[in-house]
Amino acid sequence: MLEHGGDIKGFQDEFGTRPLDFSANIAPFGVPEPVRQAMVAALDDMVDYPDPLCRNLVAALAAHEQLPESYILCGAGCSDLLFRLAAACKPQRVLLCAPGFTEYEHAFDTMQPAYEYYELIPEQGFSVGEDILERIQPGLDAVVLCQPNNPTGVSIPRALLQQVLERCAVTGTLLIMDECFIGFMDDADQLTLVPLLAENPQLVVLKAFTKIYGIPGMRLGYALCSDAALIERLRQAGQPWAVSTLAQAAGRAALTCDDYVDAVRTTVSAERAFLRNAFATRGIDVTGSANFLFFHLDNSESFIAAMRAQGVLVRDCSNYRNLALGWYRVAVRTHEENLRLLAALDAVLPQLTKEA
Amino acid sequence: MLEHGGDIKGFQDEFGTRPLDFSANIAPFGVPEPVRQAMVAALDDMVDYPDPLCRNLVAALAAHEQLPESYILCGAGCSDLLFRLAAACKPQRVLLCAPGFTEYEHAFDTMQPAYEYYELIPEQGFSVGEDILERIQPGLDAVVLCQPNNPTGVSIPRALLQQVLERCAVTGTLLIMDECFIGFMDDADQLTLVPLLAENPQLVVLKAFTKIYGIPGMRLGYALCSDAALIERLRQAGQPWAVSTLAQAAGRAALTCDDYVDAVRTTVSAERAFLRNAFATRGIDVTGSANFLFFHLDNSESFIAAMRAQGVLVRDCSNYRNLALGWYRVAVRTHEENLRLLAALDAVLPQLTKEA
Repeated sequence: MLEHGGDIKGFQDEFGTRPLDFSANIAPFGVPEPVRQAMVAALDDMVDYPDPLCRNLVAALAAHEQLPESYILCGAGCSDLLFRLAAACKPQRVLLCAPGFTEYEHAFDTMQPAYEYYELIPEQGFSVGEDILERIQPGLDAVVLCQPNNPTGVSIPRALLQQVLERCAVTGTLLIMDECFIGFMDDADQLTLVPLLAENPQLVVLKAFTKIYGIPGMRLGYALCSDAALIERLRQAGQPWAVSTLAQAAGRAALTCDDYVDAVRTTVSAERAFLRNAFATRGIDVTGSANFLFFHLDNSESFIAAMRAQGVLVRDCSNYRNLALGWYRVAVRTHEENLRLLAALDAVLPQLTKEA
Repeated sequence: MLEHGGDIKGFQDEFGTRPLDFSANIAPFGVPEPVRQAMVAALDDMVDYPDPLCRNLVAALAAHEQLPESYILCGAGCSDLLFRLAAACKPQRVLLCAPGFTEYEHAFDTMQPAYEYYELIPEQGFSVGEDILERIQPGLDAVVLCQPNNPTGVSIPRALLQQVLERCAVTGTLLIMDECFIGFMDDADQLTLVPLLAENPQLVVLKAFTKIYGIPGMRLGYALCSDAALIERLRQAGQPWAVSTLAQAAGRAALTCDDYVDAVRTTVSAERAFLRNAFATRGIDVTGSANFLFFHLDNSESFIAAMRAQGVLVRDCSNYRNLALGWYRVAVRTHEENLRLLAALDAVLPQLTKEA
């Protein structure tokens, strides 16, 4: 089995059918129709190299984010941008949250930095506290935060993030802020650091098309930063043609899909509340503020396999730093799919109790 | 203007029309129909993350190349694989041909190695000679060669490459062999190093779908190596989802397009001879054995702009190391397009003579 969620191919090879995938956190409505049409229209443009500067897409993003074009670098998903940050900045000391998205470390591993971990603990609701400020000291090259954190789904108050930014300005530390999931949050506007980019050149915000537009197969993300020299170094730290012709066309079309995004947000918000409540009635506490929920199950060694047997992929979080067997993450999907998740859960939970 | 060829977007912004692009070396027949169909069929699969292991595509490539699956790593074009080689091997001393494809250096720049150059000179027909063997000494981490070399189009005899491989085995040097254009050559079977992979774990061969299948907008290439540990390090040295869902589908479909590839090879071979002869009758010596030709023009400061004004993009090679103003590269395309290239040339050449 693969380390990350979303291993549809592995499931299909094993069971011969498509699973219900709650292991990857993707908008549940399929590819938006304008995106699909734009991709079909762009198929014949595949005979040309992609525009390495993504000029049309960057112009559309600048309007969408209300930022200057010079702040924007597109990449083949946020993962591509993380590897560029590693290669361009070669940080020697990096502060990460534990647990946190494993790809941060994967990307920085190429530069073999020393890692420091800010530990998120269940007793404090996995929240980031003010004591993170003490961890930002001169000599720390970068701190990576995720709003909300993955896999816990716990958000960080903007007031604290502003203090982090101020501290980073003093210590010469880069703040890499992953906002790939922020679009699913009810209070995204209060939490995003995008409005603070102009006065904080030590801030890089990462955003993705992958999740909110339901196109992870496409590979498209972008970095935002007001430090023009850093943007240029990031551009140089990877291939010129990272963003395919189709991805550029898809991205431009996606930015016209406000209705789609509104529908995703509304559904995810209602269904997140529904699932939280449904889990609570089953005695399971969950955290989560975006389109995924995080929870613990006792005696759950057989849980993932039992859910697979029910046709449902759940993310086993035991390979995250600072987590052990028993921690899981599920996506928030459509009501009908969420009911099927709960049905599978109801079939599996009694087995766990029996085995214990 | 962009450094590389293929800047369709820049031309369109300037002239409002699509140029005739001889600056990028791509099969001239458009996207193969089975590839187009496979991409349309795959559009709805964009809702899933791509298979990070590209399992179906790797199986198809293994059959196509008659190699074990363990030898194969797919990437988002050869450029992606070059950056992975840089990050995974961190070479401190690298030997490159000058002139040679500028992306080798771009990719390795991220690791700031010391470069050594094997100089290709006009007086020797830009050929690689046996004296390259003396340049491969202990402490040299990698040598990068291209068959045929880009931009000169000059090939390297396999007997010499075998000596290079033997020398690399002695000195502990990695031979990175770029065979992205080899499919356009008449004697590809006699020149490829693919049959030597099994007994040479110090050999990495890079191949691309970009050129021969006419889909540079897609981003798909692969590395071949019998050193399983190196393949795994290359996999880890970049993002897991580098190859998009559509690229994987396109690649599998492309491998069924033998007729398309045969037609490309036949046309390119005939048209290469036609263009070489046509250039010769205009007093211009050319080199080239794949789908591009390389030549020098005296007094040609205005050549690129004049050809652009004729609607034709030509690759200015003056930014290649060891070349100066006056060296150019053109793709070999269909007969009708090649006639338009010659017509533009005939309109422009007298201006150059007049200015001189």
